[in-house]
Amino acid sequence: MYKILDKYSNIEEVKNMNISKLNEFADEIRNFLIHKVSKTGGHLASNLGVVELTLSLYKVFNFNKDKIIWDVGHQSYVHKILTGRKDKFDTLRQYGGISGFPKRKESQYDFFETGHSSTSLSAAAGFARARDLSNESYNVVAVIGDGALTGGMAFEALNDIGYRKTKVIIILNDNQMSIAKNVGSVSKYLNKIRLDPKYNKIKEEVNEKLRKTNIGSEVANSIKKIKGGLKRIVVPGMFFEDIGIKYLGPIDGHNMSELVDVISKAKEIKEPVIIHVITQKGKGYDYAEKNPNKFHGVGPFNYDNGEVYSSSGLTYSKVFGNTIIDIAEKNDKVVGITAAMPDGTGLCEFSKKFPKRFFDVGIAEQHAVTMAAGFAASGYRPIFAVYSTFLQRAYDQILHDVCIQKLPVIFAIDRAGIVGEDGETHQGIFDLSYLSSMPNMTIMTPKTTGDLSVMLNWAVNQNYPIAIRYPRGKDADSIELPPIKELKLGKWQIISEGKDIAIIAAGKMVQHAFMAAKKLSKSGINCTIVSADFIKPIDKELITKLARENYKFVIIEENVCHGGLGSSVLEYLNNKDIKNKVLMLGLKDEFLIQGKTDILYKVCGLDVESICNKILTFA
Amino acid sequence: MYKILDKYSNIEEVKNMNISKLNEFADEIRNFLIHKVSKTGGHLASNLGVVELTLSLYKVFNFNKDKIIWDVGHQSYVHKILTGRKDKFDTLRQYGGISGFPKRKESQYDFFETGHSSTSLSAAAGFARARDLSNESYNVVAVIGDGALTGGMAFEALNDIGYRKTKVIIILNDNQMSIAKNVGSVSKYLNKIRLDPKYNKIKEEVNEKLRKTNIGSEVANSIKKIKGGLKRIVVPGMFFEDIGIKYLGPIDGHNMSELVDVISKAKEIKEPVIIHVITQKGKGYDYAEKNPNKFHGVGPFNYDNGEVYSSSGLTYSKVFGNTIIDIAEKNDKVVGITAAMPDGTGLCEFSKKFPKRFFDVGIAEQHAVTMAAGFAASGYRPIFAVYSTFLQRAYDQILHDVCIQKLPVIFAIDRAGIVGEDGETHQGIFDLSYLSSMPNMTIMTPKTTGDLSVMLNWAVNQNYPIAIRYPRGKDADSIELPPIKELKLGKWQIISEGKDIAIIAAGKMVQHAFMAAKKLSKSGINCTIVSADFIKPIDKELITKLARENYKFVIIEENVCHGGLGSSVLEYLNNKDIKNKVLMLGLKDEFLIQGKTDILYKVCGLDVESICNKILTFA
Repeated sequence: MYKILDKYSNIEEVKNMNISKLNEFADEIRNFLIHKVSKTGGHLASNLGVVELTLSLYKVFNFNKDKIIWDVGHQSYVHKILTGRKDKFDTLRQYGGISGFPKRKESQYDFFETGHSSTSLSAAAGFARARDLSNESYNVVAVIGDGALTGGMAFEALNDIGYRKTKVIIILNDNQMSIAKNVGSVSKYLNKIRLDPKYNKIKEEVNEKLRKTNIGSEVANSIKKIKGGLKRIVVPGMFFEDIGIKYLGPIDGHNMSELVDVISKAKEIKEPVIIHVITQKGKGYDYAEKNPNKFHGVGPFNYDNGEVYSSSGLTYSKVFGNTIIDIAEKNDKVVGITAAMPDGTGLCEFSKKFPKRFFDVGIAEQHAVTMAAGFAASGYRPIFAVYSTFLQRAYDQILHDVCIQKLPVIFAIDRAGIVGEDGETHQGIFDLSYLSSMPNMTIMTPKTTGDLSVMLNWAVNQNYPIAIRYPRGKDADSIELPPIKELKLGKWQIISEGKDIAIIAAGKMVQHAFMAAKKLSKSGINCTIVSADFIKPIDKELITKLARENYKFVIIEENVCHGGLGSSVLEYLNNKDIKNKVLMLGLKDEFLIQGKTDILYKVCGLDVESICNKILTFA
Repeated sequence: MYKILDKYSNIEEVKNMNISKLNEFADEIRNFLIHKVSKTGGHLASNLGVVELTLSLYKVFNFNKDKIIWDVGHQSYVHKILTGRKDKFDTLRQYGGISGFPKRKESQYDFFETGHSSTSLSAAAGFARARDLSNESYNVVAVIGDGALTGGMAFEALNDIGYRKTKVIIILNDNQMSIAKNVGSVSKYLNKIRLDPKYNKIKEEVNEKLRKTNIGSEVANSIKKIKGGLKRIVVPGMFFEDIGIKYLGPIDGHNMSELVDVISKAKEIKEPVIIHVITQKGKGYDYAEKNPNKFHGVGPFNYDNGEVYSSSGLTYSKVFGNTIIDIAEKNDKVVGITAAMPDGTGLCEFSKKFPKRFFDVGIAEQHAVTMAAGFAASGYRPIFAVYSTFLQRAYDQILHDVCIQKLPVIFAIDRAGIVGEDGETHQGIFDLSYLSSMPNMTIMTPKTTGDLSVMLNWAVNQNYPIAIRYPRGKDADSIELPPIKELKLGKWQIISEGKDIAIIAAGKMVQHAFMAAKKLSKSGINCTIVSADFIKPIDKELITKLARENYKFVIIEENVCHGGLGSSVLEYLNNKDIKNKVLMLGLKDEFLIQGKTDILYKVCGLDVESICNKILTFA
């Protein structure tokens, strides 16, 4: 089916291909990718953007000794195809299959694992300095998107790499997108370079004119003095040169010979260098070119018409998006903040309705949180919508800038708990633990999309930090849970009553508990189900009451067990010297791999079936 | 005693002072500061550096409506003097006294609290955007050091502020120091501007020559084209202009009239602006000028000769510093990393002995951790020495870049537990909680300085992430605890045996437990003391054994109770359905204010006396 790809077996082969064969290979790979990802889903657009780039890197470097680090890592599919994994693409992002990100266990060519943005330059600095200390001479390459450059740690790395002149080859993969369109002045600056062919033209003109014209010697002298300065005019990318990184570019990221040429040059330079490569997200697949956002992280789709097989129903993100618009209409102090994810978080509509009250700060969670704190200190009610896993970047800002001052920032934490196919780096299973240990923090978990709306409306009227934490996706089908009637700080809600076991569940686990209780009742075990609408503070009164009534407790949460809801309950019971039995159901002390959430629930023992079985043993 | 200061009562007065009176006032304030801080200790050098700057800000702005945010905040003493707190300087940084940082409860002029570095620009963006949304017109000023600019979140903020053209007035207080001398290419770049008066001279020359000379029109045209480019030559600070922030400077931060002049100009500009102010740390006190590092955060000292009243004895930092040298001599894969704190962390000697293996990355904890991960992935044994509170900045990097890949990075976590006079923002009381919930992390707590050394030597021979967490200062005097004989992963050590109570203590709390047990034995209560050398994994075998022997447990840790050692023990006991009584002694779910550690131990009930009393009640 594929002339080159089918026979391809190892990376040496790429080195022996000429430009025309490489281009042919690129076409095949592109085709392969579109077909495969149309079946599995995955990060299509970004991978289509780096086909030529990846091939040219393999043409120029020898990754049997050289190292490469893929920032974020979801653009590593071509790299995976080239390094022995092409036959595994049917398992991409599936449970037990190959990852959508670099994994050291998968291949000797996956030198460093990534997932979150902006880490590659720091890691590359470590690799390069280790190389230098060992007096070795291999190359260290980092491929980083322009979006990832908005993350502060990338700048920390540039600042350090430029200062120490650590030789790292940085490929700036500039497609003007992170997931959505990029923001920030560095992006604007890059865009200026990108759109301005004048740069090189001016350079030529000035040189020529200066040569031809009989110019006054004094002016010539002055101009000589400003020679270094002239570089500023004619060389784009002085921003990088100012901080000690040599700049090459911009170059066309789909022109193989230009890529090979410039990357080869960069290889010879003895100091840190950044190659500014312009790529197009979705390149070569019409539907993805036109809608790179949709094809960023995409589910299975129809190859022929680009239509994504989507399911219907209201997601938590959508409900969040609708609710914040309702709230903002009534309360003009509400502002919405995102770190480069207006679509994923559901803020897109809000951004159109309230453009002045919407702030996309780029991939910059730290700044987002402290800016929110500034808003809150000015009497506003900022809502920062963010994925659980990315909020980890702002741990210190939540604690130090929001909680110490007890400022009313609302954290709308999406994709919490088991997230699925992105695997270890993207599960949201630590937030209950790290947020619970922060003084002044209130944490809520809606058991349904309906509750999310109620909680948001309540939260904007409180005067302290509140985290509302909800899962990816939708509610379980055909489940009817009573909505919250009245919210009161730290008060839980009894969903149903039974005399044997008290199940205290958080968020979506209330749905699982509800279904489990139905099954258990058939085995003669009757459960009281409590929805722990607040993870912090916990409902001490209700716990005490249930304990006095001699219930055994089962606590269910989609979070690592240590430091979560179960811990809080245990600590309280211990403090009161209450000895009722407690079964803690949550995630083990290990990272959770990729897979569909339904499969992962089973793997973790948090599906309805497993919950039943564990309770049967416990009861 | 002070002609102006004694009569001074409110900020309006500064506005009415002329330059000469302001200079006189500056002298008085400087004198006042040196005298007061010589008695209480505090951040002297940075405050002496901003006397004129602060006065000029109060001269130009009206902080009854304008807002000011002090990055880090330890340079806010002059601001505190001017805003009604001069009579409280005897209580500076003392328990119950005024803070060394801005505190909203202290004054209406403390608009935003700070402590950690690089937060001011983000907060200012929040304030300024709130202002704009409310259609108000006050000024928002952020004062940030060049050191704090190395923190990634400052860059995230600049990138966003420049992009949206949010009007914030940024005062770049450039003293070329954070605590130690600054590193990083931005710092180098600022230095180039600072040292190069040519910039302005060239500008004048070029303009003049171009006017005088009869220049060929074609060249003139070309030059016209590059008009925008010319700005690049003649204006320093293009780095900032490239990302959308207008640059003014550099100006002399001790020249009051220049300061007032330029700041007044900046006030009129309708877009974000950065004023580059050159100041000298320690200005006006000879000893501090010569040794700004020593007088950064200083204890009480002799005004006349600048000698600091220091106590003798080996601190944990010093022992760490000595040990890492020993280890590095034997193991050439060991590298030392600091985020701008070579002295505080004890790495200074190491940096001299092994300059090539020492990396000061600036105030950039995120980059430090992921760079360490890169080193570890290359077969090195990086040791990142950092204060507990600052490691919070790298939560995500520890989890995502180190723990997921299980890389052997060693975190030498200094200033853990109760730290003292810096207050809420600097206590190290959350690390056991957030590190404990990270899979693949091992956590150790040495009970003495001697154990710290043993643990470090052990840790460099393991192949996974290890955090060693130790307190500020020294061991308790005249305490003799048996050193660790042999370290084994997750094994605890029994220090002394008694039949009534089993005290499991972590780190320095073993010393308190030891002294408490001595006292308790006089009341007829005999304690087994266990040193929890590992916080993770815990010694399940020993816990089980002690539980079977019917001990009541007392767990003592210098960390918030939730999610720490006590939680881990409770979770294990619950899991095994062991019902022995447990008393958890740790810090409450609240931020811990400033004060000497001895006082704070009492406040928190972790001093020997309180521990005794609590155990008496419990037993």
